[in-house]
Amino acid sequence: VKEQTLATVFLEELRDIYDAERQITRALPKMVKGASSEELRDAFQTHLEETKRQIERLDSVFESIDQKARGKKCEAMQGLLGEGEELIEQHEQGPVLDAALIAGAQKVEHYEIAAYGTLCTWGKTLGYTDAVGFLKENLSEEKMADEKLTEVAAGINTEATVGA
Amino acid sequence: VKEQTLATVFLEELRDIYDAERQITRALPKMVKGASSEELRDAFQTHLEETKRQIERLDSVFESIDQKARGKKCEAMQGLLGEGEELIEQHEQGPVLDAALIAGAQKVEHYEIAAYGTLCTWGKTLGYTDAVGFLKENLSEEKMADEKLTEVAAGINTEATVGA
Repeated sequence: VKEQTLATVFLEELRDIYDAERQITRALPKMVKGASSEELRDAFQTHLEETKRQIERLDSVFESIDQKARGKKCEAMQGLLGEGEELIEQHEQGPVLDAALIAGAQKVEHYEIAAYGTLCTWGKTLGYTDAVGFLKENLSEEKMADEKLTEVAAGINTEATVGA
Repeated sequence: VKEQTLATVFLEELRDIYDAERQITRALPKMVKGASSEELRDAFQTHLEETKRQIERLDSVFESIDQKARGKKCEAMQGLLGEGEELIEQHEQGPVLDAALIAGAQKVEHYEIAAYGTLCTWGKTLGYTDAVGFLKENLSEEKMADEKLTEVAAGINTEATVGA
């Protein structure tokens, strides 16, 4: 049985999302390639740049609590991103694949929204003021990325009903 | 390469969430047992009853589009729920485990929020009016369940900082 403090689970969750973000930076270029809609490609590309900055903020979070920045394999993210890769392999490029890629990406965003929400709450309880500042920035970017995808989807889905 | 229509991906996503909800009904009783806070146990128990009704609504969704209700193994949910089981095995009962269980449950909720959000959007595009009605009910319940957990967490986290 592990030592049990909120500080420990905070650190574990932080390592989980750190690994998740790094997985995302490797997956997004494939999603950019798989997308047909220019708007969607731009949204993925923009989010890739954003994700790189989010990782830098996570480095600052680790530093602010005197911990070495280190990831811990996030299996959930591996599963979510794996589904996206399968989609790209199984479907021809076109509006239906775009719609499915958006659905997958929104699951990824929601995983992150939940994780950052938890980290913000725990960080606040633990008095990690600096950390919470960085985590809130990441949380708000993920929420905006999710909304952006909903917007992009609106244009694509109508096309997708008629098939590829 | 699979036939590509939005109707096909809608059906696949529906089968995915159908399986996910059924996995959740099997996991929640363990989470009820693992939780120490009475408020959290109640929240999980209430969500179990809710989840059973959500599955019935999904049966109606399948029926409304003349499809047999059938799940397709949702790997992502299996991963998320597996993490929760590990938590229960690795940690002693107490406020820290409760905080970690809530974090895991909120990831589950967010997976569902993303999935139902997608299904509602696609259903609307496809003109599945009855289906969208049921799906919206499920979506709104998941959002409320997520908010309820945030509320319960507020009381538990302060306790958790002092350890078990």
